Amino acid sequence: MKLFSSVNDVSNIYQLVAEARAQKQTPFADEVLGKHKTLGLIFLNPSLRTRLSTQKAALNLGMQVMVMNLDKEGWALETQDGVIMNGTTVEHIREAAGVMGEYCDIIGFRSFSGLVNRDEDYSEDIFKKFVKYCGVPVISLESATRHPLQSLADLITIEELKKTARPKVVLTWAPHVKPLPQAVANSFAEWMNKIDYDFVITHPEGYDLAPEFVGKATVIYNQNKALAGADFVYVKNWSSYQNYGKILTAGEGWMMTNKKLNLTNNAGVMHCLPVRRGLELSDEILDGPNSLVLNQANNRVWAVQAVLKMCLTQILSEGEGLSEMSI
Amino acid sequence: MKLFSSVNDVSNIYQLVAEARAQKQTPFADEVLGKHKTLGLIFLNPSLRTRLSTQKAALNLGMQVMVMNLDKEGWALETQDGVIMNGTTVEHIREAAGVMGEYCDIIGFRSFSGLVNRDEDYSEDIFKKFVKYCGVPVISLESATRHPLQSLADLITIEELKKTARPKVVLTWAPHVKPLPQAVANSFAEWMNKIDYDFVITHPEGYDLAPEFVGKATVIYNQNKALAGADFVYVKNWSSYQNYGKILTAGEGWMMTNKKLNLTNNAGVMHCLPVRRGLELSDEILDGPNSLVLNQANNRVWAVQAVLKMCLTQILSEGEGLSEMSI
Amino acid sequence: MKLFSSVNDVSNIYQLVAEARAQKQTPFADEVLGKHKTLGLIFLNPSLRTRLSTQKAALNLGMQVMVMNLDKEGWALETQDGVIMNGTTVEHIREAAGVMGEYCDIIGFRSFSGLVNRDEDYSEDIFKKFVKYCGVPVISLESATRHPLQSLADLITIEELKKTARPKVVLTWAPHVKPLPQAVANSFAEWMNKIDYDFVITHPEGYDLAPEFVGKATVIYNQNKALAGADFVYVKNWSSYQNYGKILTAGEGWMMTNKKLNLTNNAGVMHCLPVRRGLELSDEILDGPNSLVLNQANNRVWAVQAVLKMCLTQILSEGEGLSEMSI
Repeated sequence: MKLFSSVNDVSNIYQLVAEARAQKQTPFADEVLGKHKTLGLIFLNPSLRTRLSTQKAALNLGMQVMVMNLDKEGWALETQDGVIMNGTTVEHIREAAGVMGEYCDIIGFRSFSGLVNRDEDYSEDIFKKFVKYCGVPVISLESATRHPLQSLADLITIEELKKTARPKVVLTWAPHVKPLPQAVANSFAEWMNKIDYDFVITHPEGYDLAPEFVGKATVIYNQNKALAGADFVYVKNWSSYQNYGKILTAGEGWMMTNKKLNLTNNAGVMHCLPVRRGLELSDEILDGPNSLVLNQANNRVWAVQAVLKMCLTQILSEGEGLSEMSI
Repeated sequence: MKLFSSVNDVSNIYQLVAEARAQKQTPFADEVLGKHKTLGLIFLNPSLRTRLSTQKAALNLGMQVMVMNLDKEGWALETQDGVIMNGTTVEHIREAAGVMGEYCDIIGFRSFSGLVNRDEDYSEDIFKKFVKYCGVPVISLESATRHPLQSLADLITIEELKKTARPKVVLTWAPHVKPLPQAVANSFAEWMNKIDYDFVITHPEGYDLAPEFVGKATVIYNQNKALAGADFVYVKNWSSYQNYGKILTAGEGWMMTNKKLNLTNNAGVMHCLPVRRGLELSDEILDGPNSLVLNQANNRVWAVQAVLKMCLTQILSEGEGLSEMSI
Repeated sequence: MKLFSSVNDVSNIYQLVAEARAQKQTPFADEVLGKHKTLGLIFLNPSLRTRLSTQKAALNLGMQVMVMNLDKEGWALETQDGVIMNGTTVEHIREAAGVMGEYCDIIGFRSFSGLVNRDEDYSEDIFKKFVKYCGVPVISLESATRHPLQSLADLITIEELKKTARPKVVLTWAPHVKPLPQAVANSFAEWMNKIDYDFVITHPEGYDLAPEFVGKATVIYNQNKALAGADFVYVKNWSSYQNYGKILTAGEGWMMTNKKLNLTNNAGVMHCLPVRRGLELSDEILDGPNSLVLNQANNRVWAVQAVLKMCLTQILSEGEGLSEMSI
């Protein structure tokens, strides 16, 4: 694997989930794979779970890790081509990416959506430029429109805990005070659409995700109806895609509560975190037996460890190929 | 050891000091203990000595270390229960601690005093919640009311250098321009009270520490009288406990100088650093032969290394217990 | 080697370049050298290339690395002696350096020029004080007036690619919107003057470097004339030394372009990065075949790895000496 930016970069998601679950059983079984290999983690905005889980997974695989919070430790990157850089941007992404590629065998990169210009965000221009100019395998640590490591961890969590072959999974919008990207919701939908689950999305009108992410999911604007008989409920806020980046409603009545949980098939309740208590999810659910949020957080390690292993395997096999050629 | 938050968590402080001194002699003797174990260091405010000494000690023990400056790299934590999180706090300490517990075998955590609400600070609410929700052994890297790793390093320093079995140790208040917590002074007093030294505290009136920390110490408001015959003088500023968080006096005449040193038994002069030269301590003392501040800083490594070893030993023995059970 | 702060600390630069090129061929050949040795990297201002390349080199040598961004993670240092520290500086460099020396076997330290007081900057007061008080070998990660690791990487790059024994190397000033230090230019000149190249410096009048750095270089104010027949062109902005820290001209016509490249001997074009595209260097050059900026960035690893190896070798030989003495 040379790029992990969406579910479309995965040739066999069942095999990837199986690999992640195998890593979870024996976390240090492949620690020789990463010897003398360096992972660079580049963040353009803050991270807790993603940074720590990726760092941990890389260490489990015997890699060295270098973390760079470019927003805090570095400077503003120029991402437009052909401009005269006489303003506040200090370095062009062409050079920054190229340099980091010189120092790292694999790079994890996090960009983010500006939530102002939809075309710009959905073009994934910054992420794609970074991939192009760094010249080494890249793993998305979240980009403007997707968060594939989160989605893989979510899928692992459902696969571990599902009681039927084809569970009903509901992605439900939840209220928030800040406009948030659609990345986690998009990505979750994208992965669910690749798996043969009964997948439903529910949200107030006006919050429809982009058609390419909705895919074959059933969309229901009535949350209670959507939740009926659900085995897993994924709670997440996102801002409007149509009225791009806007908050359209306070979302009264959309918080996930125990009362709503009664409508489900005793569903496991999921959230990618950080979560706003009392707004997105009630305390009673987060502190109760149905919450799977820590399971998801734990599975972030095994998700990225499986992806890193695939990248390392490819690097090593190419290295062997080169050695053979040079014989 | 599953918690190191105060001297009360230590069953035998003599044994702990002996362990620290043994680690100092052979820093890498136990490097197999930490193999495949991860230490998370979580800071809610800046750190120099504590971060570097703890990182170094953990590496000496063969551990992996992940550092998270939550104040700089992360976001504001909510610590109150039952609130609707529709303000500026992004994540509740229940989830943040729980997640970090998923990624780390041991966590070092630093919280701090707000110096506004005494009851809140002295309840150690944030620190205790973190311990409760992270679910793994926790080492205090300083909390609102205590700094036990500093105190242990201080004790090691005195034990290494004392010339009599029962030295006279004087904790003296010093002037400062900013209101500082009582944590270092409280903690030093707490540890001194556990050891059979001749322990004296001196400060201007109004600066009395909380009774539970003063304990059996002799309190003298006249600094010169207190310093008479001292073998060790610990210099430290703190703000008022009674008039909570306030600076009551500029403290003219309370700076430790060579002239005052003449009153002592050629005392070793200690400070936890950072120190304000010319305000808390004179240049002549800090640059002279009686200063022990670098000895203390060095002993921070062995203090935390001894504590980490005790945590690792317990984790490993429990792991063996589990293995036996699962046979 | 106990200090690497300028070319004058190097006894044999040809040998150092050869060592760096050997490290590049077999990056892990000396990984046993750094076992149980800790490198501290202390930054007083942001760094991308220097931090990552040095971290990577140290890991290649088997060292542990601790990074401290004092400007972001720490606090303001006092550097003047004899002051009463009742202002905003929290810790004196004497203590800060001394403490870090207790935790590290080698320290990389980055200070910077204020560009206000020339005598202060050119005295290298902060850097020298850090070296004096930390008590362990120090490697400059750039200081007020020099950037020796960059210059060594530049020299390696030229040595690798030169087609004649004595290439013509031109250091040319370039426009910028911010006043920048002279450090990179000074340092490059200093290293070039030690090597038997044909070395030319060109810049608008008023931008002459300090005489001790210009040395035996030919200075030509006409850029086109200077570039004639150049084998390597080093492009870099700096602010005025005479009119200290000032920008004297917008520098119209001084940007390096393909048109100017035609005047050269198909020169390799160098820059230390970060570079302002469209201002210092044209896109066409940076994206074209003559750009060596990524070669230089890559060689930063081998430059510092060679320097670190020399420091480690000395530490280990002294350690053996001590062991022999103690037998």
